[in-house]
Amino acid sequence: MTKPIIMLGSGGHAAVIADIIQQLDYTLIAVVSPSSERRSLFSGIQHFASDDDILQFSNDEVKLVNGLGALPGQSLRHQLFDHFTQLNYQFESVVSPYAMLSQYTTIGAGAQILTGAIIQTGSIVGCGTIINSGAIIEHDCHIGTNCHIAPGATICGGVCIGEYSHIAPGANIIQGISIGKNCVVSAGATVTKDMPDNSIAYGYRSKIEIRS
Amino acid sequence: MTKPIIMLGSGGHAAVIADIIQQLDYTLIAVVSPSSERRSLFSGIQHFASDDDILQFSNDEVKLVNGLGALPGQSLRHQLFDHFTQLNYQFESVVSPYAMLSQYTTIGAGAQILTGAIIQTGSIVGCGTIINSGAIIEHDCHIGTNCHIAPGATICGGVCIGEYSHIAPGANIIQGISIGKNCVVSAGATVTKDMPDNSIAYGYRSKIEIRS
Amino acid sequence: MTKPIIMLGSGGHAAVIADIIQQLDYTLIAVVSPSSERRSLFSGIQHFASDDDILQFSNDEVKLVNGLGALPGQSLRHQLFDHFTQLNYQFESVVSPYAMLSQYTTIGAGAQILTGAIIQTGSIVGCGTIINSGAIIEHDCHIGTNCHIAPGATICGGVCIGEYSHIAPGANIIQGISIGKNCVVSAGATVTKDMPDNSIAYGYRSKIEIRS
Repeated sequence: MTKPIIMLGSGGHAAVIADIIQQLDYTLIAVVSPSSERRSLFSGIQHFASDDDILQFSNDEVKLVNGLGALPGQSLRHQLFDHFTQLNYQFESVVSPYAMLSQYTTIGAGAQILTGAIIQTGSIVGCGTIINSGAIIEHDCHIGTNCHIAPGATICGGVCIGEYSHIAPGANIIQGISIGKNCVVSAGATVTKDMPDNSIAYGYRSKIEIRS
Repeated sequence: MTKPIIMLGSGGHAAVIADIIQQLDYTLIAVVSPSSERRSLFSGIQHFASDDDILQFSNDEVKLVNGLGALPGQSLRHQLFDHFTQLNYQFESVVSPYAMLSQYTTIGAGAQILTGAIIQTGSIVGCGTIINSGAIIEHDCHIGTNCHIAPGATICGGVCIGEYSHIAPGANIIQGISIGKNCVVSAGATVTKDMPDNSIAYGYRSKIEIRS
Repeated sequence: MTKPIIMLGSGGHAAVIADIIQQLDYTLIAVVSPSSERRSLFSGIQHFASDDDILQFSNDEVKLVNGLGALPGQSLRHQLFDHFTQLNYQFESVVSPYAMLSQYTTIGAGAQILTGAIIQTGSIVGCGTIINSGAIIEHDCHIGTNCHIAPGATICGGVCIGEYSHIAPGANIIQGISIGKNCVVSAGATVTKDMPDNSIAYGYRSKIEIRS
């Protein structure tokens, strides 16, 4: 039996994650969101308006799930992860029953592997990272902490991706490529060269520039 | 127990759909097609040469499945849907047992969700629309009636697509985009801007033009 | 009960394939590789340094699985397939339990269908060909022998692909296209025209050139 779960956020990504944890052996006891809007998915679940409301639970009594989405330039997801990790709360990793993971993978705390995602043997997914719907992580990839591999992206074998990087929907990274920290690969881009830290890739056989 | 099914068409899309309904609790009693060519998949199934042959069954005795494919500029699929709907025949929606649908989705009458397709929470798929093999529909999308989301396309969260639009194979639509009615997104295109009715998108960070 | 399996190769592709055969009713008795490096996946499995070590087993006593990867310009996978086929050894075809195949498909000897791959009705996959993770083969495709359809590629209905061709990650081939022998479709490319033998396609609405 796992500990009761508190969800941070109530938007689209939170709903996708809540949908998965309903299918698993979790008990979602509360949703934390300044918004008063409620999806039917969250009906009957306690609603907290402030992150500080979490503090009424001790850090060994509950686990957190990060329902904030991750887009380039948005840091709230990561701030919440860091804030509550420093307070010794634990973030539960969430793996969809419809994800396809090799048993020879390592999934960090708070990582989220969504429906239809594939992760092949020897790959490592860092803490807090999202492998979104239908994304493909081939063998022997190292995906850093707090990354987002968006829906439909394809990451070939042996690719390394540094922390806080964002691989947008439908992007392709060929085998053996190294992508630095805090990078962005644009939607539909195909990366065939290494990317330094803080760079952005766009286009077919992507041009790579330092992010401004 | 569902009503007996009559399939309109006997080509490639019809075969894919027939393959799915064989895996489900349906009884396919007839295939309607002017072509005399027969796949092994349809062996032992009655063959009608004319759409009018359907009229020997009352509209509460059978259900129809639309096996016509959908490509830009081809309207036969939609004409048949409209014709038999006006005669009060019902089109059965077909969902592959290998599709991955959130239970918080709404699937219209006659919609077809194929193998490996993903539909996330809060999304709506209109009547007669095809979500083809391995296509990804993220959370909170509204896909209109009589659309075709082709194989391997990725539709991100909160996208709206108007009726009769065609998203070709491997296309990517980023989050929150609004696509009008009767639009075409070309194969492999990436759409990052809204599209007005009757427009076509092509290329990386797609150019958008009114369809001629 | 199937015959004992010997794996050729011990790199990334071999590991992916070994991972699948562990999930199936196979007994992997040896791995053949000049490399002395060992993954945990292969722990406890006999290691042979030379291909000739296979000859201590008669060709009706064991079956082979080809764990060599396939990239353009690399022929070792095919050489080994030809060499041991001429010695009347049989290559086992490997189909992931998480692949989604119509029962109306034909899969050649030694073909490998990986996790999350989709193959629709009426399609034929040639001997020794890899349909890699999450690749989509629509209805009525004919994929020749010794091809590689890389992760995340989308092959639409009725496409024919000649032997020894390589469709790179995330590439899209629209319906009805004919691709010759020994062709390369680059990562992320979209093919909308037929390709002659020995040609390469790159870019959006791909340019096609004879391979140099």
